[in-house]
Amino acid sequence: MLSFECDYNRGAHPEILKRLAETNEEPLSGYGDDKYCASAKEKIIECCEKPDAEVHFLTGGTQTNQIVIDALLTKYQGVIAAETGHVSLHEAGAIEFTGHKVITLPNREGKLMAETIRKYLEDFYGDENHEHMVFPGMVYISHPTEYGTLYSLKELEELSALCRSYGIPLYMDGARMGYGLACRETDVTLPDIARLLDVFYIGGTKVGALCGEAVVFTHRNTPKHFLTTIKQHGALLAKGRLLGVQFDTLFTDNLYLAISRNAMEAAEALKRIFQEKGYRFFLDSPTNQIFIVLENEKMEKLKQQVKFSYWEREDEEHTVVRFATSWATTMEEIEELGRLL
Amino acid sequence: MLSFECDYNRGAHPEILKRLAETNEEPLSGYGDDKYCASAKEKIIECCEKPDAEVHFLTGGTQTNQIVIDALLTKYQGVIAAETGHVSLHEAGAIEFTGHKVITLPNREGKLMAETIRKYLEDFYGDENHEHMVFPGMVYISHPTEYGTLYSLKELEELSALCRSYGIPLYMDGARMGYGLACRETDVTLPDIARLLDVFYIGGTKVGALCGEAVVFTHRNTPKHFLTTIKQHGALLAKGRLLGVQFDTLFTDNLYLAISRNAMEAAEALKRIFQEKGYRFFLDSPTNQIFIVLENEKMEKLKQQVKFSYWEREDEEHTVVRFATSWATTMEEIEELGRLL
Amino acid sequence: MLSFECDYNRGAHPEILKRLAETNEEPLSGYGDDKYCASAKEKIIECCEKPDAEVHFLTGGTQTNQIVIDALLTKYQGVIAAETGHVSLHEAGAIEFTGHKVITLPNREGKLMAETIRKYLEDFYGDENHEHMVFPGMVYISHPTEYGTLYSLKELEELSALCRSYGIPLYMDGARMGYGLACRETDVTLPDIARLLDVFYIGGTKVGALCGEAVVFTHRNTPKHFLTTIKQHGALLAKGRLLGVQFDTLFTDNLYLAISRNAMEAAEALKRIFQEKGYRFFLDSPTNQIFIVLENEKMEKLKQQVKFSYWEREDEEHTVVRFATSWATTMEEIEELGRLL
Amino acid sequence: MLSFECDYNRGAHPEILKRLAETNEEPLSGYGDDKYCASAKEKIIECCEKPDAEVHFLTGGTQTNQIVIDALLTKYQGVIAAETGHVSLHEAGAIEFTGHKVITLPNREGKLMAETIRKYLEDFYGDENHEHMVFPGMVYISHPTEYGTLYSLKELEELSALCRSYGIPLYMDGARMGYGLACRETDVTLPDIARLLDVFYIGGTKVGALCGEAVVFTHRNTPKHFLTTIKQHGALLAKGRLLGVQFDTLFTDNLYLAISRNAMEAAEALKRIFQEKGYRFFLDSPTNQIFIVLENEKMEKLKQQVKFSYWEREDEEHTVVRFATSWATTMEEIEELGRLL
Repeated sequence: MLSFECDYNRGAHPEILKRLAETNEEPLSGYGDDKYCASAKEKIIECCEKPDAEVHFLTGGTQTNQIVIDALLTKYQGVIAAETGHVSLHEAGAIEFTGHKVITLPNREGKLMAETIRKYLEDFYGDENHEHMVFPGMVYISHPTEYGTLYSLKELEELSALCRSYGIPLYMDGARMGYGLACRETDVTLPDIARLLDVFYIGGTKVGALCGEAVVFTHRNTPKHFLTTIKQHGALLAKGRLLGVQFDTLFTDNLYLAISRNAMEAAEALKRIFQEKGYRFFLDSPTNQIFIVLENEKMEKLKQQVKFSYWEREDEEHTVVRFATSWATTMEEIEELGRLL
Repeated sequence: MLSFECDYNRGAHPEILKRLAETNEEPLSGYGDDKYCASAKEKIIECCEKPDAEVHFLTGGTQTNQIVIDALLTKYQGVIAAETGHVSLHEAGAIEFTGHKVITLPNREGKLMAETIRKYLEDFYGDENHEHMVFPGMVYISHPTEYGTLYSLKELEELSALCRSYGIPLYMDGARMGYGLACRETDVTLPDIARLLDVFYIGGTKVGALCGEAVVFTHRNTPKHFLTTIKQHGALLAKGRLLGVQFDTLFTDNLYLAISRNAMEAAEALKRIFQEKGYRFFLDSPTNQIFIVLENEKMEKLKQQVKFSYWEREDEEHTVVRFATSWATTMEEIEELGRLL
Repeated sequence: MLSFECDYNRGAHPEILKRLAETNEEPLSGYGDDKYCASAKEKIIECCEKPDAEVHFLTGGTQTNQIVIDALLTKYQGVIAAETGHVSLHEAGAIEFTGHKVITLPNREGKLMAETIRKYLEDFYGDENHEHMVFPGMVYISHPTEYGTLYSLKELEELSALCRSYGIPLYMDGARMGYGLACRETDVTLPDIARLLDVFYIGGTKVGALCGEAVVFTHRNTPKHFLTTIKQHGALLAKGRLLGVQFDTLFTDNLYLAISRNAMEAAEALKRIFQEKGYRFFLDSPTNQIFIVLENEKMEKLKQQVKFSYWEREDEEHTVVRFATSWATTMEEIEELGRLL
Repeated sequence: MLSFECDYNRGAHPEILKRLAETNEEPLSGYGDDKYCASAKEKIIECCEKPDAEVHFLTGGTQTNQIVIDALLTKYQGVIAAETGHVSLHEAGAIEFTGHKVITLPNREGKLMAETIRKYLEDFYGDENHEHMVFPGMVYISHPTEYGTLYSLKELEELSALCRSYGIPLYMDGARMGYGLACRETDVTLPDIARLLDVFYIGGTKVGALCGEAVVFTHRNTPKHFLTTIKQHGALLAKGRLLGVQFDTLFTDNLYLAISRNAMEAAEALKRIFQEKGYRFFLDSPTNQIFIVLENEKMEKLKQQVKFSYWEREDEEHTVVRFATSWATTMEEIEELGRLL
């Protein structure tokens, strides 16, 4: 059966498996203290064009969000996020589990606007009772967002300026960052992100790795004893090499961007097909996630031949569903899906 | 200076101080294991007309919300509340501190409607990915609400029926319950509350006590080892008698209701004055909190002579403020405020 | 029945009740922002002879330990305590509830020695894997200890010097501090404590108050937004006056020390009786808690006429029990107990 | 340089890499809902000879301990462990992070004896104040222990009987379970473990996998909504196949036991060499970890040519170090180490 269910339905890019095999016999120290981790970090820092950046590897996205947010917030602070943010809705309360509130604000197609946050902060500090409330301690955004949309460079600059004026870190969830960077329509580069954000992560799981996310603290701002914090959250891999080798491979010869482009080309082709066939788009997403409104009957029929994912109920008769392309999607798959549609 | 700042600006009802003095010399066991706690519990259960109810005493409102909610939720659950609820906004993240999300839903003048919750629960269980989300584990309402509004009996019945059909407890924050019960316009009695809710608390701090809230589990549903849970939250008073004597006094000869009525009469008189003088009400609250929209200039002038509390900014030139009456407000104070207005 | 069960079996010192009644009608702002809190703080700071000290009021001992420790530790740190410490054993896990480990070290009659801690810290930092362990972030001691024993000035000086050399705060649980200060055998004064400790609390609940503990940060080291932290832990009293009036009374005209002396005189008289009658002491406690080893049969008989408290099982036939005197114990009670023994 | 630093210094068993490559292209659902996870679970259940067992996959050991313990304990409970247990010392407070105390008891060469626990439980429930203490909610043991020692079948039976009589689950940390099962001297089999324990995990990371641990709940006792709990702890892998394929490989044709035996043979050969050369053993460990006491000078010299790990300081002049063999250790490495010694 065809699968457009998600962007993590295949294993890893073959080059990663090859490098894992090649390095398999070498005895290496544990917990990330090995040469592959070191080399991967160096390459990422170079791509960021930010020599004072620091890189750490974690295993998955929710884990990364939980640890970064918990490590950066003081105990009486919460994190500001769009009400559609991954941390707000789809992490089973992983942030609250660490004692912190997710302060949700309205979004525009998944994006959190500087103006929305500014208004919130002004009201917060203007409120005479704000000492009885959760202090806003950082801002969480995702790029691409959960709806596949992208911030413009100008929007990121505004967010960055606002956060810096309030002295609160700006954090980007980059689970699908490759797809954002590889998008034709974006004016945002990795060095822009490294310059404007205080911390972000470059997603591996959804862009070619078996697992793994690379957290970048952009200005020597890694929290003290971060390794202990990772261990305390149960997230320290004994075989750190597994993450090091993968990111070293992804950041050799621009592989990360190259495979991300594949997903974008597949997505563009697929969007054209949907358009040509008159399907209704739920919203206009420029990246690898395509949201389509289907009649329930049609949806049930299509389910027999292709996997896609449920997004939300629109009304009694319609459902929003998502088709995702990935680094591994082939043009044959797109064509076959085209025939089914 | 006149003070309409809040309903906790005086000490205790004189009868309470008298009883504290009378019982002061008696040696009593600690931690609530004394005859005054026992007697107070009995009287409260009787007023609830619910023989299988169980009563526990705690010190303050936020503490009570934190402990009751944490004790009733399993670890992967959150509590549903109005986005204006005390637990949502004004408890400095005390719920999230215990690891639980406050799932906020839209409100109607501070109230959470059964229909709103039903829709949420249907969407939640209809979502194929709900295992990646926080499970709704209980419903929190306040009565009177943070806006002084009251649920009707019918609304409570609907909430109760809905919660029972989903098997999740319904909890009422009764910080100002006396003022709700003493309101002329209400059709809700304490036995109604004890019948329809799974757990609620009767507020003492804001209704005549120095401190103290009485938690009522309505059908032998006190969580196992609740005393240990209270201790673990740092909330177990060594001199439990302090709470026992106070509630024993408040529930002797209907004192609780009697002093609540005083607040309501004062509030009614004050509302008439505001109306007569053409002040604009922010919303129509039937209980002891009166929300008025003031021009900022007028507000600054009034502040010189009377204390009231900031509620929220309406626009550049207007502010919403709150005047609260209490069990201790005198008609002389109302009249004096009338002259100032 | 006679009661030597504990030092919190009576209400409050009559002077406290009197002041509560006298101030009862005054309208005061909530949450500790009132003149009685301000005055009490001033008087305590003066008694401490430490003008840069800062004082905050909380309700009970476990609550105070939980909040102070949680506020001072960073998230990956634990608190060092004697294995017999109150936080180690008798707070139902209130410290772990906030995410922090209690690192327990061996004690000498309830006391934690500087040498024991030094050895621990040297081993910790000497261990190549200490980043996989809980970092020691502060030291907790109690004075008097849970066994009624007292640190000498020299011992406190050594603890203080050690902690300062490692940059970790030294915290004293003073639930029964009055009895320690009023002890004939001590060479430690309140100014000594304020000079050597980073934070400590002066117990009210066990020394004449209805409830309440006064936390002293000794060198402008109150954690940022401490009020928010208190609220987050559910511990902010709306009627802060209840604590302010009580401590203002206790620190007027040396009342705190005066009533503490009463407990010590009663304890000395009682110890003489035990000695004369040949009872076996479990350990030699210089303060108001007397630990006696009783044959179980004798214990059961005595229980019929006097309340005392179970401490621990010594062997099949003997039990360690505790008799406590307090600020309220009368010489008549001591004499009557003497007759029963 | 030779490496006997640990049992996780190589990548994965080649068969695992081969299977990862073979299955790489298949599109599979995420979060463990794939055929390789299903097949691996089935094989493990079969090896356990316990048809009502349930298997779940997690990524690392500390993560597994944290999640299993947090999922099984109610909020006011703690876990009993040896004071030398991994959860007690070397997990950076990962258990306390979830709000639970580790109740540490004395050990015998890393083992926790039924008698020690029984005495603790009797004292706990005999203590009249136990409601002020952390309730013991489960027992944690490791097998092999942190010192490489093994429980006998009789010892496990006693632990199991004790725990069942008190109604608290018995949990085994099997990070190195393979080496325990493959030990010549053991009388404990996997079916014994599945019969006597309530939950345990079979370690992959240290026995041939890149990462991964298989948690076994032995009698349909998986906690409700365990997937949500895993997600809440940040531990749900999107590509669950990574764990499924690895365990499916390890449990095909007894590979897990076969490669474990290699470590044991290497360990036996190495122990003979240490004995012949007159080295002093710190303790007699029957499994793959060998603890040797070295003079510091000798240690420094040896460090130039072989990696081993620091264990603890014995005295000023001696250090305890650990040499570990693994599934990947070759006889050539043993011989070369022999020549160096």
